[in-house]
Amino acid sequence: MTGGLKNRGKTKADTEERRKAVEKFSGSKLGCVSSYAFDPQLAEKNIENMIGAVQVPLGFVGPLKVNGDFAKGEFLVPMATTEGALLATVNRGCSALALGGGANVFIVKDEMTRAPVFRVRDLRHGREVTNWIATHSAQIMEAAESTTKHGKLVGVRTFESGRSLFVRFSFETGDAMGMNMATIASEKAANVIEEGTGAKLISVSGNVCVDKKPSGVDFILGRGKTVVADATLPEDVVKEKLKATPEEMAEAALRKDLVGSAMSLSLGQNAHVANMLAAVFIATGQDPAQVVEGSMGMTTAEAVDGSLYVSLRLPALEVGTVGGGTKLPCQSEALSIMGCLGAGKAKKFAEIVAAACLAGELSTLAAQATGTLASAHKALGR
Amino acid sequence: MTGGLKNRGKTKADTEERRKAVEKFSGSKLGCVSSYAFDPQLAEKNIENMIGAVQVPLGFVGPLKVNGDFAKGEFLVPMATTEGALLATVNRGCSALALGGGANVFIVKDEMTRAPVFRVRDLRHGREVTNWIATHSAQIMEAAESTTKHGKLVGVRTFESGRSLFVRFSFETGDAMGMNMATIASEKAANVIEEGTGAKLISVSGNVCVDKKPSGVDFILGRGKTVVADATLPEDVVKEKLKATPEEMAEAALRKDLVGSAMSLSLGQNAHVANMLAAVFIATGQDPAQVVEGSMGMTTAEAVDGSLYVSLRLPALEVGTVGGGTKLPCQSEALSIMGCLGAGKAKKFAEIVAAACLAGELSTLAAQATGTLASAHKALGR
Amino acid sequence: MTGGLKNRGKTKADTEERRKAVEKFSGSKLGCVSSYAFDPQLAEKNIENMIGAVQVPLGFVGPLKVNGDFAKGEFLVPMATTEGALLATVNRGCSALALGGGANVFIVKDEMTRAPVFRVRDLRHGREVTNWIATHSAQIMEAAESTTKHGKLVGVRTFESGRSLFVRFSFETGDAMGMNMATIASEKAANVIEEGTGAKLISVSGNVCVDKKPSGVDFILGRGKTVVADATLPEDVVKEKLKATPEEMAEAALRKDLVGSAMSLSLGQNAHVANMLAAVFIATGQDPAQVVEGSMGMTTAEAVDGSLYVSLRLPALEVGTVGGGTKLPCQSEALSIMGCLGAGKAKKFAEIVAAACLAGELSTLAAQATGTLASAHKALGR
Amino acid sequence: MTGGLKNRGKTKADTEERRKAVEKFSGSKLGCVSSYAFDPQLAEKNIENMIGAVQVPLGFVGPLKVNGDFAKGEFLVPMATTEGALLATVNRGCSALALGGGANVFIVKDEMTRAPVFRVRDLRHGREVTNWIATHSAQIMEAAESTTKHGKLVGVRTFESGRSLFVRFSFETGDAMGMNMATIASEKAANVIEEGTGAKLISVSGNVCVDKKPSGVDFILGRGKTVVADATLPEDVVKEKLKATPEEMAEAALRKDLVGSAMSLSLGQNAHVANMLAAVFIATGQDPAQVVEGSMGMTTAEAVDGSLYVSLRLPALEVGTVGGGTKLPCQSEALSIMGCLGAGKAKKFAEIVAAACLAGELSTLAAQATGTLASAHKALGR
Repeated sequence: MTGGLKNRGKTKADTEERRKAVEKFSGSKLGCVSSYAFDPQLAEKNIENMIGAVQVPLGFVGPLKVNGDFAKGEFLVPMATTEGALLATVNRGCSALALGGGANVFIVKDEMTRAPVFRVRDLRHGREVTNWIATHSAQIMEAAESTTKHGKLVGVRTFESGRSLFVRFSFETGDAMGMNMATIASEKAANVIEEGTGAKLISVSGNVCVDKKPSGVDFILGRGKTVVADATLPEDVVKEKLKATPEEMAEAALRKDLVGSAMSLSLGQNAHVANMLAAVFIATGQDPAQVVEGSMGMTTAEAVDGSLYVSLRLPALEVGTVGGGTKLPCQSEALSIMGCLGAGKAKKFAEIVAAACLAGELSTLAAQATGTLASAHKALGR
Repeated sequence: MTGGLKNRGKTKADTEERRKAVEKFSGSKLGCVSSYAFDPQLAEKNIENMIGAVQVPLGFVGPLKVNGDFAKGEFLVPMATTEGALLATVNRGCSALALGGGANVFIVKDEMTRAPVFRVRDLRHGREVTNWIATHSAQIMEAAESTTKHGKLVGVRTFESGRSLFVRFSFETGDAMGMNMATIASEKAANVIEEGTGAKLISVSGNVCVDKKPSGVDFILGRGKTVVADATLPEDVVKEKLKATPEEMAEAALRKDLVGSAMSLSLGQNAHVANMLAAVFIATGQDPAQVVEGSMGMTTAEAVDGSLYVSLRLPALEVGTVGGGTKLPCQSEALSIMGCLGAGKAKKFAEIVAAACLAGELSTLAAQATGTLASAHKALGR
Repeated sequence: MTGGLKNRGKTKADTEERRKAVEKFSGSKLGCVSSYAFDPQLAEKNIENMIGAVQVPLGFVGPLKVNGDFAKGEFLVPMATTEGALLATVNRGCSALALGGGANVFIVKDEMTRAPVFRVRDLRHGREVTNWIATHSAQIMEAAESTTKHGKLVGVRTFESGRSLFVRFSFETGDAMGMNMATIASEKAANVIEEGTGAKLISVSGNVCVDKKPSGVDFILGRGKTVVADATLPEDVVKEKLKATPEEMAEAALRKDLVGSAMSLSLGQNAHVANMLAAVFIATGQDPAQVVEGSMGMTTAEAVDGSLYVSLRLPALEVGTVGGGTKLPCQSEALSIMGCLGAGKAKKFAEIVAAACLAGELSTLAAQATGTLASAHKALGR
Repeated sequence: MTGGLKNRGKTKADTEERRKAVEKFSGSKLGCVSSYAFDPQLAEKNIENMIGAVQVPLGFVGPLKVNGDFAKGEFLVPMATTEGALLATVNRGCSALALGGGANVFIVKDEMTRAPVFRVRDLRHGREVTNWIATHSAQIMEAAESTTKHGKLVGVRTFESGRSLFVRFSFETGDAMGMNMATIASEKAANVIEEGTGAKLISVSGNVCVDKKPSGVDFILGRGKTVVADATLPEDVVKEKLKATPEEMAEAALRKDLVGSAMSLSLGQNAHVANMLAAVFIATGQDPAQVVEGSMGMTTAEAVDGSLYVSLRLPALEVGTVGGGTKLPCQSEALSIMGCLGAGKAKKFAEIVAAACLAGELSTLAAQATGTLASAHKALGR
């Protein structure tokens, strides 16, 4: 046994030994992080070198009225954050949405992707490989799906540039977010392709996937769940709850989300979708690094016949209700609040998340349109 | 008093009341989230509607050897995650870096931005406003800086499109990440511009800032800290620690990070920078939604005279060591591990974060180059 | 009759009258533009308000050896330009390619697109429209194809954002570039959709097409012909013809085309593809505004076993050999030089164009890698 | 003497010999291209391997009323095209603009750029080079400006990624478009940097310039001339001339130029700016490959107090009135029509070009908003 910093064990005692070694190395006292309420062995598949836990303040917003295909009714949405004013803002949006009949939400597409890159001899070899893939789809599918109970290979698309050939696999992954499932299945499929064609696998991820980087491919083709949400709010609701007129909201959306985002070459045309995603992701054990592609949302607002129409499009919302951090105690509880823990709940959860993002967009757009953003932060935040 | 779900109080009792109301509303038991180790009133500026805390497993990587302008020496880096294999991966990278003499890091630029959008009458009016800003910079600076002790307005750049005029303010924000400081100061400056020119402020954030969305402006001009890091590893270190040759690493970086990212129109040319950022951000009380722009890193690898040269460029790393979530108990402890808590530490912290990202990039690139990514996830993760 | 500047006639006399009116209005003598060799009525579908013709110097490069699916053999390629050194550069590339066995070229995809935008009541209405389109594809296809002899509707893809619904139609357009064909057919299809669904057509082009603007959609999904070309050149050819080593070429391609293009967020990773396209397009009566999307090419160069491997990927090469300017006398002659005039030649022509672009890329990359770009321009250009 | 295809001479006889050799090689008769009205030796700096000239139909639009800083009054604008309906469309826009008082235009920025890429040892070396450049600006400026009479080095900006260092030089280039001037000056400056720092010049163009590729850098920072134009049209003018209402125009601009362009990740938010640019560029001897970056324009339309406000922003309009193709006979004549030939005219010319683009945008937006685009093409085009 190496002990101290080099201890690689997973028990409470191992964790404590490491924590003390860290205290000693750094000269800092680690009290708060050592007081957590679960057995470290529950997290043995979630982290290595554990020394404790970070406690992130958890609150809720809602009731959030959702009219989805899977989520129907009123939900409280747990959010973990350290950014003052965030929950108050989203909560105001929930109230406004409720008065407008709720958020209408549905899922347009649902596929997780992974794109290995191969080295081929030249473009013609690449074409042969592409053709080989097309004519051996059953074999590739069988290999890929041999690695997973829940994953199904539902699409393959190739992109070639010189000696680099990218094969973008799309999977249905059930209620898991599915990134690891897709990686493992793609590696197996890639090995079949290697053997059948002489192409050389260079990386199981060739960055045409694209995981945890903002990208045009995900923006245009989607990754995980592509979800859309909208709502129509009567003028009086807008005025009373949001202190703005529909026209002011529309103008702010126009100049900020559309013109401003175009001017800055932004891959997201929204106010702060990433805030809602990060807070819900942390609360519920999602992968917070996937807030990156999640952030690429487009928010629109229009004044229609005196009412306010608002919408949000999320091309790449990557969430799951099984696997990953979802089974940790606090995170499970957070999912439970929405009735979204476990199998059969991922689509429902995605719809609720999108509706919560819409609520946040609505409220912040109003705050910005009426010049109260800074004052809200002064009053509620740091 | 409204009570239950509508209770807006900040005390422990309020928090408990709300938690019970949530339990009742949702029919779910909230045990883990209610066992946290700090007084909710400590978080009164960090969250509203608090019902408890989420416990995110915390571990560490390191020692990470950093040769920075501000961070010099070996550091343990706290990371909070639920993604198995992440810390093991980064840790391997730390070992390799250490054997290569450590990561060389420095900060290229350090400015936080906010860009209000104004409605002007037409382009000529917009030009007058731009000119007015140029000739009234002292007045604008005075207004902006009247709102902050630590912030300094160091740059103004305008962008015009028709009746929309964007004024991108750049601030030095000391050891705070500085977004709220910049927002409050920009609002004041914007009011001065409104009064002086007749331009109408439409939104204090006009999405040319750009906060929490991936964007060309941040990629090219930077936001927060632009940090670069590199290292040179002898061939034997690469082979022994990373199980790869420098040439294999270079080829994987070429086809994945450069060709693949180009093919997918990715705004990040890296493997998984967002992972390291998310884990460190959550551990240390940063704003996790800012992982979005943080993720836009470029990783390069070259075989040079038999050794491996690796580098990382982070154009928009937004971190602070005061304010926000940094003062919460667990988060403070995490910062303390690196000697990065409080005033005078933000640049040091940014350098350590960049070095940790480089470690993670190095290790994952090797795992992908040698075909062990999927197996690592199978062994260590879910 | 209005006469003078307002004359709208198409005869030689009308043209002359207009020219004289322009001379009078502007006080400038128009001699060169009035001496052209064709009857203006031949151009009656190509221009309005004709006053003459501009004479653009025409040269040729080649022989260019092409190993395509449709273009096989050696070709002289006509190029019209006023940019000194361009033809000399491309010509050098042709020589080098010939010594390496020629350029291997093929077409990956061949579809012209047009994407009307509709206003829908809300997202659910948009979903209904999308579903209606899916279940009425025969009717839509019939309407679209009723407008054209050669066009076939081969794909429909919808994108929704709030009350805006984009329907991207893909057409096979035979030997025509096909933009007008696609527009006319899309309008008819759009009218069918309007009638069937209550969606309101806002613009027959909704900028998800995307014509004459650089765009992610065209870069990723292609528009017109997606063509790839490559070649392998022995080291001695590289050294003698291009005055560079394969390694120097690879390094220039790496730092310039990949790292540099990434750094500048370029939608093209090449040296000057647009130059070759513009010169060939003008010579052969293509639409020169489509150089825009044509320019989005990716050039790679690698040193492989001592040789130089170079490749080019053109995702959106929009060319035709019938229609548009191809039937004008000079332009027809230019197409004839390559045996590419008229029906059945568009794919052959596209392959030759891609090979010529590869030749230009190869040569300019060498000039830049060896520091002779500026001197070439000094010697040959202005 | 080599003769035939290999003849490299510049005289009329050489040109004829080559043309005949091309006829023989290809078996095609080249009559039209051989009947041109100028001495080939006039084009000796504009082309190599000349065999004749291509005659592109030339027309005009206007009078176009321009209220610029340099262009004031009414202008006829020459356009060379083979795309039917283009001039008619732009002409309609000119009429509408005239009735609205003309296009207001001005130049926001005017700098040509070139960005060599250097190989440095590592990031620290790169930082030393950056610092060296900052402290040797006089020496670098002197070297750069020693190569040119008209060019002035007015800015330097460095971008680093690992061992690649990009130095983006900005030049004022007088009335020349300035690309070659900037290239030659940059090479000289780069040599000074090489000698002073040990950095190795890899390519005088490192694709952070960015020439002839669409790019974020040019979109955001500009290249050549950044020009803006706008106009306000009374409702009756819009209705009578454009057959649309201001509200219809605004809606088409919103859904197409803003939402659609966002959805397709377009680097241009316009209808067809490239069309006007290509036609004017070919007519006047500009570099038609630079239509690429020119195409990145943003068009907006708003209904304001019953009138229609339209605007266009062109971040990268690269034009000149001396050098390049401007001195060829036809092209000179075309410039003369606008009083834009020669020294002191480049800014005036740029303003007219931008105004012409606005006219084309206005008219095509109306055609699309009212559903007459396809019918116009059917009636006037092929």
